[in-house]
Amino acid sequence: MTDFNIPDNPYLLLTPGPLSSSKTVKAAMLRDWCTWDSDYRSIVQEVRAELVSMATDAPDYTCVLMQGSGTFCVESVIGTALGPEDKLLVLANGAYGCRMAEIARYLKIPFTLVEFGEDKPIKLERLDEALEKDCAITHVAVVHCETTTGQLNDITAIGGLVKARSKIFIVDAMSSFGGIPMSMEEIQADYLISSANKCIQGVPGFGFIIVRTQIIEATAGQARSLSLDMYAQWRSLERGGKWRFTSPTHVLHAFRQALQELHGEGGVEKRAARYTVNQRLLVDGMVKLGFECLLADAQQSPIITSFISPADPRYKFEDFYDELKRKGFVIYPGKVTEVDTFRIGNIGEVYADDIHRLLQAISGSMTWSDGRA
Amino acid sequence: MTDFNIPDNPYLLLTPGPLSSSKTVKAAMLRDWCTWDSDYRSIVQEVRAELVSMATDAPDYTCVLMQGSGTFCVESVIGTALGPEDKLLVLANGAYGCRMAEIARYLKIPFTLVEFGEDKPIKLERLDEALEKDCAITHVAVVHCETTTGQLNDITAIGGLVKARSKIFIVDAMSSFGGIPMSMEEIQADYLISSANKCIQGVPGFGFIIVRTQIIEATAGQARSLSLDMYAQWRSLERGGKWRFTSPTHVLHAFRQALQELHGEGGVEKRAARYTVNQRLLVDGMVKLGFECLLADAQQSPIITSFISPADPRYKFEDFYDELKRKGFVIYPGKVTEVDTFRIGNIGEVYADDIHRLLQAISGSMTWSDGRA
Repeated sequence: MTDFNIPDNPYLLLTPGPLSSSKTVKAAMLRDWCTWDSDYRSIVQEVRAELVSMATDAPDYTCVLMQGSGTFCVESVIGTALGPEDKLLVLANGAYGCRMAEIARYLKIPFTLVEFGEDKPIKLERLDEALEKDCAITHVAVVHCETTTGQLNDITAIGGLVKARSKIFIVDAMSSFGGIPMSMEEIQADYLISSANKCIQGVPGFGFIIVRTQIIEATAGQARSLSLDMYAQWRSLERGGKWRFTSPTHVLHAFRQALQELHGEGGVEKRAARYTVNQRLLVDGMVKLGFECLLADAQQSPIITSFISPADPRYKFEDFYDELKRKGFVIYPGKVTEVDTFRIGNIGEVYADDIHRLLQAISGSMTWSDGRA
Repeated sequence: MTDFNIPDNPYLLLTPGPLSSSKTVKAAMLRDWCTWDSDYRSIVQEVRAELVSMATDAPDYTCVLMQGSGTFCVESVIGTALGPEDKLLVLANGAYGCRMAEIARYLKIPFTLVEFGEDKPIKLERLDEALEKDCAITHVAVVHCETTTGQLNDITAIGGLVKARSKIFIVDAMSSFGGIPMSMEEIQADYLISSANKCIQGVPGFGFIIVRTQIIEATAGQARSLSLDMYAQWRSLERGGKWRFTSPTHVLHAFRQALQELHGEGGVEKRAARYTVNQRLLVDGMVKLGFECLLADAQQSPIITSFISPADPRYKFEDFYDELKRKGFVIYPGKVTEVDTFRIGNIGEVYADDIHRLLQAISGSMTWSDGRA
């Protein structure tokens, strides 16, 4: 044994992830694993089973782990799920929705992109219209929590429509799974995609796909990439937990610890409650300080919030950012095209006390004004 | 600060990687980083510059980091480097060579695969013939250290021929870079590919590509995948160290620590000398115990060695493996098609003393025989 100190992070990450993980999650990375060995493969299987059980009670779902970032997982789904005769409909109200269309474009998969505006909800009528108009569409993809703004899309309503037309439903739940209760049956999702470093509070390095077994079984031979062949990856994982190619062993072990800590917190409901309190405190405090949210409350997720940048010409995001960082908080730049915004995430090891401290820090960092945004 | 013990690994990994990394490399993962922040981006740039400087003194090379395993990096190179009119020649004497052809097949890139047999060296005449015969070939790809067997291919001689015919040369140096001295100029490689968890002794989660700037500049718009678009990744990294999609922040930081420890050891030459001693001790000891190497000495790398499985019917790899694991050593199964083998790697935090202890453990684990393999 070697004694070691785990330093406190010099700042709290108030970002869409990678986020502030617990010290015990990070400490789970302090040993090496052999990818071939049963010790490691049993952890892989445990993690896969746990992820399925978080998403559904039904027996006919399975889980694929995929190396890389969340986008790699989304691409592995789109590139494997759609056969040569298939067509994708993407519903987008932000950059992550549009990215799914971009993936289809790269892969030369026929697609239709329906955009709603970054600050607008997804209109069900337009989904229905699109499906009505184009019977070539076989798959529909949407982002649950659009991190561009923090907007939460009503995937249950969307799923209802998609399934009424018997299409395959792909949900990018990157920023929401583990932080917002959801079930595959309720959403009627065929594919649910998320990542290690979001609401389950692991560290970055892989993502995962929860999928109906019957659906993934039908995708053999369709993949457009060896590395991102979701089907082949699944077949290999089913054979005793073996990833096809080298997996991020330390990151996986951290993720297993994160899953245990999610249980320890009381599960997804309890975590969602904490995030909701965080977000509520944040918005209430920010509004008191004179800031304005980009979205209406009804559109807003409990994950990340976009604030409209102060109009004062003396406000500069970089200065504000640096000042807050010096005080121990790292916030996030905006990603909206039309409006100047910045974002504050409230997922990860972030508690009400942290939000109170953050608000105090923000209050003292509004150097551009007399103390009102 | 929180006190923590770093446990000793319960066994030493004698594998092709993920391998046994140092405690200080793992301890570098004990904090969280914001991908957008300059603290993190400056580490990215430092690592990229360091990797280039390990491969060449020339100014016109650059480095791309790519999420995922080594195969993801190889696919990002093949899928981006070859344009619609290009054709790939793959020289293969093992599974990793063949995998490059498999990538081309997935991506529908025209290719020719020339195979030499897993235990055979690459014959330059056949390379020359292939290039002579088919002038459509624009790129030639080969694996440096073929981990299937442990065979080291003469990439300098191959590079000479490839360049004599003005083709683009892609070298998969996954298992060798950092453990065997090499320079881009000497090899005449345009692309050199390796991974974090091999001879630089980091942990798994990303790989990297060292490439001539002029060559990568010409690959814009060619990628067949968004996630694995090497060109777009490079352009983004050039803008201040920003990966396009979430990067494995902890793994990157461990890698930076691993690079510092490589320096501390005295650089690649010194590390290569340690590996060479390890491998020599291993083979001498194994031969004394009655084992036979698959390859002749002249073909053998100082990285990993294939041993022919004992012919005794009482020998079972699984039992041998379990027995050695109980004694603190994890070895690796064989990957050769025609001959039953097992493999022992000697890279990572592995020293002469470990090899001596291993040989003793092996000597006491040959339960199938009277003490001779």
